[in-house]
Amino acid sequence: MKASARNLFSGKVTAIRPGAINAEVELTTAGGDKITAIVTQTSVQTLELAVGKEAIALIKAPWVMLLTEDGDIKLSARNRAAGKVSKLVKGAVNTEVAVTLAGGSTVYAIITNDAVLDLGLTEGRDATVLFKASHVILGVPA
Amino acid sequence: MKASARNLFSGKVTAIRPGAINAEVELTTAGGDKITAIVTQTSVQTLELAVGKEAIALIKAPWVMLLTEDGDIKLSARNRAAGKVSKLVKGAVNTEVAVTLAGGSTVYAIITNDAVLDLGLTEGRDATVLFKASHVILGVPA
Amino acid sequence: MKASARNLFSGKVTAIRPGAINAEVELTTAGGDKITAIVTQTSVQTLELAVGKEAIALIKAPWVMLLTEDGDIKLSARNRAAGKVSKLVKGAVNTEVAVTLAGGSTVYAIITNDAVLDLGLTEGRDATVLFKASHVILGVPA
Repeated sequence: MKASARNLFSGKVTAIRPGAINAEVELTTAGGDKITAIVTQTSVQTLELAVGKEAIALIKAPWVMLLTEDGDIKLSARNRAAGKVSKLVKGAVNTEVAVTLAGGSTVYAIITNDAVLDLGLTEGRDATVLFKASHVILGVPA
Repeated sequence: MKASARNLFSGKVTAIRPGAINAEVELTTAGGDKITAIVTQTSVQTLELAVGKEAIALIKAPWVMLLTEDGDIKLSARNRAAGKVSKLVKGAVNTEVAVTLAGGSTVYAIITNDAVLDLGLTEGRDATVLFKASHVILGVPA
Repeated sequence: MKASARNLFSGKVTAIRPGAINAEVELTTAGGDKITAIVTQTSVQTLELAVGKEAIALIKAPWVMLLTEDGDIKLSARNRAAGKVSKLVKGAVNTEVAVTLAGGSTVYAIITNDAVLDLGLTEGRDATVLFKASHVILGVPA
């Protein structure tokens, strides 16, 4: 498969916390970065998700928010990881920002040019990526 | 109503699968394309959704992912449909890609220019559209 | 904290409607604009959300839809507010549209240039913003 999502992470399922309707699934990459997804219990069964199983997580870049100086806030989104800006590609309205996490995963966010200025994002700068668990799509080999 | 969403599908409700809090609503277009939405039970009541009722489904183009060569993967997103690329509009960072499905519906996705190259998307090429049921907004005449 | 989200609203929690798994949290700005968020019960506890507490709501601009002439439709999305277009920033594919609501809040939407034309959006024109409660991220001071 090839996917248009800029963010495609391969890893192993390291935790499944079942709920009444949805389940929270944690994926850990080879480098140790963790991604939490909320999917339906139906998807857990259809994809035969289980701890130890290889899976991928897909997240589109417009679904990712960036934060700086965020030590002073608690947020409702489950996926929040500190990293460093590794690349910026500027367009007329939006910029694609690549942030490399501690475990080596690169997360891409598409944010407005104004936001790039507001946050003072430049290569090498610290930035935190933030995205909702309910926005993550999981995949397994068919 | 006029909506900024590039994807506005008209059809009939063909199934409602109620859950404890949310319901899964299936809309089928005149051409036979199917869209699944997850909305709250409150919305099912407020919109008086019922099988056979006319409704519309709205999905913004940034919520739509594109896949190619995806026969080898199972995914947690409910809406997945094969089609052919019918148009590309290229920007500095993003491209808007139109994919026409078997039933004649055109689905628009906004993806990065890099993704267009990675997937080799050109007019006439096969592509699969993918979006989450929780990203669909349903509407009915007031 | 600085966030890349174009939409960051400060206000007070004015209602919490608990569900089995999720809770619906209403935030009201100083000017009286209301934003509804759906977050997990876990987040309600972690963020210690309670009526009267100061909080922020974050929504990325690509998640916001714009409507015009929408008196004839009922929609499943919880956040729907009438306002006036206060600014447009045009790119190659997308335009960022600012809509100022009755209470003085400005909501930013990123929509396609085609949608700007279809809806006839110009400064001063009436427009309705629409976004799902499940897309709102809530934050509180740490």
